[in-house]
Amino acid sequence: MFFGSDNQAGASSRILEALVQANDGFTPGYGEDQWTQLAVQAICSLFECEAEVYFVGTGTAANCLALASLVQPWQTILCHGGAHIYMDESTAPELFTSGSRLQPISQGQGKISADQLSLYMAGDAYHPPHNPLPGALSITQASEAGLVYSIEELTELCAVAKQHHLPVHMDGARFANAVAALGCSPADITWRVGVDVLTLGATKCGALCAEAVIFFNKELAAGFEHRRKRTGHLLSKGRVYGVQFLAWLQDNHWLDLARHANHQASMLAEELLSYDQIKPAWPVQANELFMVMPGALVSFLTESGAVFYEWYPDQIAPGCHLSKDEKVIRMVTSFSTRDEHREMFCQLVRQYFERPTK
Amino acid sequence: MFFGSDNQAGASSRILEALVQANDGFTPGYGEDQWTQLAVQAICSLFECEAEVYFVGTGTAANCLALASLVQPWQTILCHGGAHIYMDESTAPELFTSGSRLQPISQGQGKISADQLSLYMAGDAYHPPHNPLPGALSITQASEAGLVYSIEELTELCAVAKQHHLPVHMDGARFANAVAALGCSPADITWRVGVDVLTLGATKCGALCAEAVIFFNKELAAGFEHRRKRTGHLLSKGRVYGVQFLAWLQDNHWLDLARHANHQASMLAEELLSYDQIKPAWPVQANELFMVMPGALVSFLTESGAVFYEWYPDQIAPGCHLSKDEKVIRMVTSFSTRDEHREMFCQLVRQYFERPTK
Amino acid sequence: MFFGSDNQAGASSRILEALVQANDGFTPGYGEDQWTQLAVQAICSLFECEAEVYFVGTGTAANCLALASLVQPWQTILCHGGAHIYMDESTAPELFTSGSRLQPISQGQGKISADQLSLYMAGDAYHPPHNPLPGALSITQASEAGLVYSIEELTELCAVAKQHHLPVHMDGARFANAVAALGCSPADITWRVGVDVLTLGATKCGALCAEAVIFFNKELAAGFEHRRKRTGHLLSKGRVYGVQFLAWLQDNHWLDLARHANHQASMLAEELLSYDQIKPAWPVQANELFMVMPGALVSFLTESGAVFYEWYPDQIAPGCHLSKDEKVIRMVTSFSTRDEHREMFCQLVRQYFERPTK
Amino acid sequence: MFFGSDNQAGASSRILEALVQANDGFTPGYGEDQWTQLAVQAICSLFECEAEVYFVGTGTAANCLALASLVQPWQTILCHGGAHIYMDESTAPELFTSGSRLQPISQGQGKISADQLSLYMAGDAYHPPHNPLPGALSITQASEAGLVYSIEELTELCAVAKQHHLPVHMDGARFANAVAALGCSPADITWRVGVDVLTLGATKCGALCAEAVIFFNKELAAGFEHRRKRTGHLLSKGRVYGVQFLAWLQDNHWLDLARHANHQASMLAEELLSYDQIKPAWPVQANELFMVMPGALVSFLTESGAVFYEWYPDQIAPGCHLSKDEKVIRMVTSFSTRDEHREMFCQLVRQYFERPTK
Repeated sequence: MFFGSDNQAGASSRILEALVQANDGFTPGYGEDQWTQLAVQAICSLFECEAEVYFVGTGTAANCLALASLVQPWQTILCHGGAHIYMDESTAPELFTSGSRLQPISQGQGKISADQLSLYMAGDAYHPPHNPLPGALSITQASEAGLVYSIEELTELCAVAKQHHLPVHMDGARFANAVAALGCSPADITWRVGVDVLTLGATKCGALCAEAVIFFNKELAAGFEHRRKRTGHLLSKGRVYGVQFLAWLQDNHWLDLARHANHQASMLAEELLSYDQIKPAWPVQANELFMVMPGALVSFLTESGAVFYEWYPDQIAPGCHLSKDEKVIRMVTSFSTRDEHREMFCQLVRQYFERPTK
Repeated sequence: MFFGSDNQAGASSRILEALVQANDGFTPGYGEDQWTQLAVQAICSLFECEAEVYFVGTGTAANCLALASLVQPWQTILCHGGAHIYMDESTAPELFTSGSRLQPISQGQGKISADQLSLYMAGDAYHPPHNPLPGALSITQASEAGLVYSIEELTELCAVAKQHHLPVHMDGARFANAVAALGCSPADITWRVGVDVLTLGATKCGALCAEAVIFFNKELAAGFEHRRKRTGHLLSKGRVYGVQFLAWLQDNHWLDLARHANHQASMLAEELLSYDQIKPAWPVQANELFMVMPGALVSFLTESGAVFYEWYPDQIAPGCHLSKDEKVIRMVTSFSTRDEHREMFCQLVRQYFERPTK
Repeated sequence: MFFGSDNQAGASSRILEALVQANDGFTPGYGEDQWTQLAVQAICSLFECEAEVYFVGTGTAANCLALASLVQPWQTILCHGGAHIYMDESTAPELFTSGSRLQPISQGQGKISADQLSLYMAGDAYHPPHNPLPGALSITQASEAGLVYSIEELTELCAVAKQHHLPVHMDGARFANAVAALGCSPADITWRVGVDVLTLGATKCGALCAEAVIFFNKELAAGFEHRRKRTGHLLSKGRVYGVQFLAWLQDNHWLDLARHANHQASMLAEELLSYDQIKPAWPVQANELFMVMPGALVSFLTESGAVFYEWYPDQIAPGCHLSKDEKVIRMVTSFSTRDEHREMFCQLVRQYFERPTK
Repeated sequence: MFFGSDNQAGASSRILEALVQANDGFTPGYGEDQWTQLAVQAICSLFECEAEVYFVGTGTAANCLALASLVQPWQTILCHGGAHIYMDESTAPELFTSGSRLQPISQGQGKISADQLSLYMAGDAYHPPHNPLPGALSITQASEAGLVYSIEELTELCAVAKQHHLPVHMDGARFANAVAALGCSPADITWRVGVDVLTLGATKCGALCAEAVIFFNKELAAGFEHRRKRTGHLLSKGRVYGVQFLAWLQDNHWLDLARHANHQASMLAEELLSYDQIKPAWPVQANELFMVMPGALVSFLTESGAVFYEWYPDQIAPGCHLSKDEKVIRMVTSFSTRDEHREMFCQLVRQYFERPTK
């Protein structure tokens, strides 16, 4: 019952098999191989555009290399207060950008809205060079609250960003789950709405370790090769990333994996929310569940071997309240979550509510 | 006929198989899994000591993270003028160390000698804080000239370093080949002689992407976990590295792979040096060959599809001279070099010398 | 009528005269001169302790060099949301610390309280190496709201910091004004309560350009000389700083200057607050005034040639409310504010209120 | 007898007087004052062009801020092996440039020649992103050997740089002495020959602390204001620099000071070279003397209270040889060197040679 993160699984068997198939023989190193080239083409084709595409092995590297391409060291990067780049990547953003600053906005909201961005840009008095100026906007799709930005929301948000000359980065660690949820084309929620660079994560959705940085605004990619090399992220046996991405994209495998994860989340949410004592901290829209439940239940589940994270009590929807006896938990489903894992977990919940209260 | 680098091959089949075997099921992420733990133990056992061991995916990351643990940003790192960290890692050393400087020594030599280090330390007038002071020594085993430091050489060299309070880093991208060449215990050429931290490369010797940073001097490892995370090198599906290292070390697989590569190099050298017109730029001691040969032969080989690098004409042994018509080339053999590859290459050389000269 | 900042004045004549007196003759450079040595002694004597003392030319340099001595690049520095290091020093803190992060706390308060610090430390869930961990606390005396921390407040606050192993930095750009306000010994509000390093600003209080970084915790000073040099802050004609500090400290000149500034602020506040339409955004305790007043008055004053800054409407005391027609302004008095400057300003205010409203 | 450096003196009395004159009254801070504006105009006028001009307090800051404006962090800066930026500024260049690397060339020469630059650019094999690429050229006028580049030499050198798209930085710590020696217009050895940015030092030539960064290529100045602020080099009482530069430039005061220093050096050299036992390590062309002399004389002079530096034995002219009993010393004259100082020193030399040898 591993619902801790979508990185607690291995790789999808198709991806692993592709690695085995591609292993024999020699190729040029450092991404000059045919698989890498084909993977780049496959991504451009999927996104219906010409883009500059680079591969790395971790989400932190992908995000921070992308950000470093957007801002000057004396600028700030506006992001959500719960963003992965702000909460979970140590001070990598500062390192990769030579000292830019993250400026969290929209605390207490599940997503950043166009209005909140407008308000922030208007309300702040900038006296350069004393105050650091906003230099970019970073958003996460699906968001850190497990919510999915709609095409309309993204359109409005990016419009405000553009009005203030802020390039837009999208952290797509769970981009596949967002596309699966929206049923749209990848282009519809990226370059068509104004996203300049996307970090597209395959790792959480079935790869071993494979992340793509996709520059729709190709001018921003100048220097990327150097940045990747000097942060140690240029892999010598470059085919490792290309092969994974090729297999991931082939026959919409990535979308099948994401749909599966979303479906498991949806089924799990349905069951959990059938109990009056369990409330959604946020609506379940992709493959993450944030649930408010009795602390005693949380303890029981943990003791019974279920793996998930207790979450920050202040990171719940504005209307949602937490009593003293309640806790928030985060559960994540993945391509490898099977019905039996979910069933086992629900069984425990059932068991908890059926037993006589002390 | 890929002799360009030992990273133009894929992985050894045992390592790939291990990745497949370990793929099923859930584990904690970020290296908290059992494979990673077992791999750390296997390394400690191999090196006959307790060490702090960390895994990353590239040699540049491994080297630069290690160096960052040794020096202050206002110090220099003494290294060979042809060292990978100096020549081939962009300005990653500067980035990872927050601005330390590499100070090349021993240009024109194949290895750094104790005498050269002594001379450098004596000859330089340091006026801190104006001049940057040496803060560490980095050596490469096998060296950038394909040479292997003997136990005695390392003992003397490290002694001089220690006398000047310089911690010693060893770049072991081809450490396996050095051990295979020396027939010694890994401990004999590392901590026993005074090496503080080793970057042990498995990638060039049969892994897909797996490098270990091994701190024999465990105090120096403080902060490493943070450094690895903030450079984006903490892999979420951490088992990827652990599994590879476990398989690599099991049953002396690593040593078999290295011996094979060395043997191929040795056989190739023997054949090449049977021609009067081919001279060794450096003796062949591990899995790299540096050969001086007629420029016309180099062209012929390249045109015939052989892959290797032309090398820097000034990076040859002191006694070795290059005429106007000659070139230096570097060839590298690997675990995946087969007799037939070598034979095909030698066939071309034979063909060249047999054909009537114009 | 310059009330924009205490850096819009020149230097006190005593300090300037001292520079002239000390100009003749040769001395060793880089702070090895006698004036610098005497200034260090004078500071130690003033603070009744042995300290490591270094001079630089700007407050940003002093603050950021001090902070760089306290934290690792993967840690955060807790500071007030309105702190100069957070608001007014561009991304210098990030640069000097090789990428640490500032973490603002106590927004909406005029000072950081022990309770707020406790709450922050308790409330946050840290999962290193993912989340950056607090590594130091920085406080400002007098504070960014013009308030003065009492000995008791500092004692409690530093105690909480120490409990969490956070070294404490004090930004003393207006330290002299705080001492003048409290009537205490400089030691009473620094090392005796637990401050580890103080940046003592003379510039705002009568010097041309002279700031001291004073390490009471001398171990933290290791590396400072190198940090100062590699940020370009080691002055070749080092006497420039030493001479200024010597003259500043002699005969309690510094305290006279600060008292004068505070007195002017106090007199100005008394007059302004005699009008019902003017309210204190914060109590006036040192040499800064934050006043809420009719927007029309602000315009009138500005148009009449008075120099001051409009301030952030959300940086006022919790109890204080701002109507739509009101604005907050900041005024700063200095050693060079004369009665006539103040009188001229008050005359304008008087004039405004006396004229018939439209 | 202070010949250690031109920074062991104070300021010229005219400059100090100007500071006193400009002290009264209030001005906007941070260089928005009239003196600073006038000083910028005076510099543009002196250089007969429109330029972007910024002031800072130290040569290290001026040089490194200039360099940071020219290169990317993954590039190298070509400079002389004895350059101040390479030898005497700690790792400030690395810090200010976010990790660029200095690449020394022309070791053993007193200046960099066009041929040497050509040779370096041709000889190196660059494989980006692995190898760091040259991104700028930095030269020093007068050079680190006390030599003065002629207009012709600079023209040729900059032409080669431009051919390789390298912007050119000139470290003009002793620019005034070079102009005095050449008797040319400042424009003739800067933008007219292809220099993009000059760091013009007033400190060594009569100011207290005042250095200008002058961008002839104005596009390169984008971001300079931010860089200066975030390195802590934006002075709040900005007039301090403006006033010094104004006074320095007025009535050719700067040139008078430089001529005086050069004259003293020339007179001193004449006297010293009248002894057979003293040889020039380099010709004396500006205000620095590098002399080879008996070690016993060096000891005698030092013991008699003369202040100067022993220099690096390998930094002497190609034709000049050093016997075992000889040493190299560097002496620097300045605006404040008086005939009597020189005479006193020569007296000692005379005394040494007159006394009976043991």
